[in-house]
Amino acid sequence: MARAPAATTAKGRARRVQVLNAALPAFAEQGYRGASIAAIADEVGLSEPGLLHHFPSKAALLLETLEYHQERTYVGASRPVGTSTLRFADRLYAVAARHERDPGFIRLLIVLAAESTDPCHPAHEWFVARYERVRVAFTRQFAADQGAGLLDPEVDPAQLARAAAALMDGLQLQFLLSEGATDIVTPLRAMLDPLYRD
Amino acid sequence: MARAPAATTAKGRARRVQVLNAALPAFAEQGYRGASIAAIADEVGLSEPGLLHHFPSKAALLLETLEYHQERTYVGASRPVGTSTLRFADRLYAVAARHERDPGFIRLLIVLAAESTDPCHPAHEWFVARYERVRVAFTRQFAADQGAGLLDPEVDPAQLARAAAALMDGLQLQFLLSEGATDIVTPLRAMLDPLYRD
Repeated sequence: MARAPAATTAKGRARRVQVLNAALPAFAEQGYRGASIAAIADEVGLSEPGLLHHFPSKAALLLETLEYHQERTYVGASRPVGTSTLRFADRLYAVAARHERDPGFIRLLIVLAAESTDPCHPAHEWFVARYERVRVAFTRQFAADQGAGLLDPEVDPAQLARAAAALMDGLQLQFLLSEGATDIVTPLRAMLDPLYRD
Repeated sequence: MARAPAATTAKGRARRVQVLNAALPAFAEQGYRGASIAAIADEVGLSEPGLLHHFPSKAALLLETLEYHQERTYVGASRPVGTSTLRFADRLYAVAARHERDPGFIRLLIVLAAESTDPCHPAHEWFVARYERVRVAFTRQFAADQGAGLLDPEVDPAQLARAAAALMDGLQLQFLLSEGATDIVTPLRAMLDPLYRD
């Protein structure tokens, strides 16, 4: 009789979460190539074959690590357009403030995104899809702010969407390099606030 | 009699440049840990000890690679404040256009900057110093534009400096991830132009 897949039992699910939590700092600090499956397994008291029972390969573990921690970070953060009275910029400031409290996750994102500029990197497609999703969502939100008469009517929402995502990435990089000495929210506001009308 | 240091002869200098040119794609594509000194040496027809005669360690080679290619890229790009009739934003658009033609160098910068968020990384101090230098230079330039009545007087030049550097980094990352399909200059203009007065 075939054994049930590891993730279908409560114990299996708890084990997977343990592995995904140990994998985050490993990939964030050492990148995809540098991270060691054996060390991650050891961290949670598994053998390497034991870990590979839950995740079939290092590439699969990386993709699930990105997906799991993204989900965890943004749960409840996205609301349908028009259900908030806030300007979209204010919601970005709230996300940035949350990121300042979670340097491990933003380090995972920036280190792996930079590595993924290599088209052969196992997370390349994941990041291409992520930026496309962000671009579409941000464009819709900026267009809604424009429709409500809040945002400069001359700005192209699609270009602003790409720029705002870039601004977040770059400020997070400076925040990490300075070991938290420089914040993300102040320069983000300096750039975005002037685009809004009082 | 002590042998002259390798860099003091014309042949030695030419050899160093060959190594620094081979090191750029190696570090950009594989990061500090992933890059192989032996492979770089092989690329230019040197043995590993032969390469280490020119650069005493992998860390030293990385730092000289960053420094050499930065110098090469920006030579002539920086002018003293007030000697140009251009808005600083226009000079940033010109730098961004140049970066679009040199993806190897911007990939080196973004991959190594992301890795260097680790305080123990050999390029950590180099990147901290680089961002500080950029922040000071950009602040001065934006303040000059403000003084000339070109830039929104309510924007803090120091915060705008950090934001503009971040915007460039993030847009370069998107440019690389899209393999050049999305440009850097258009969203940069979308974000910066509205801060300037007509």
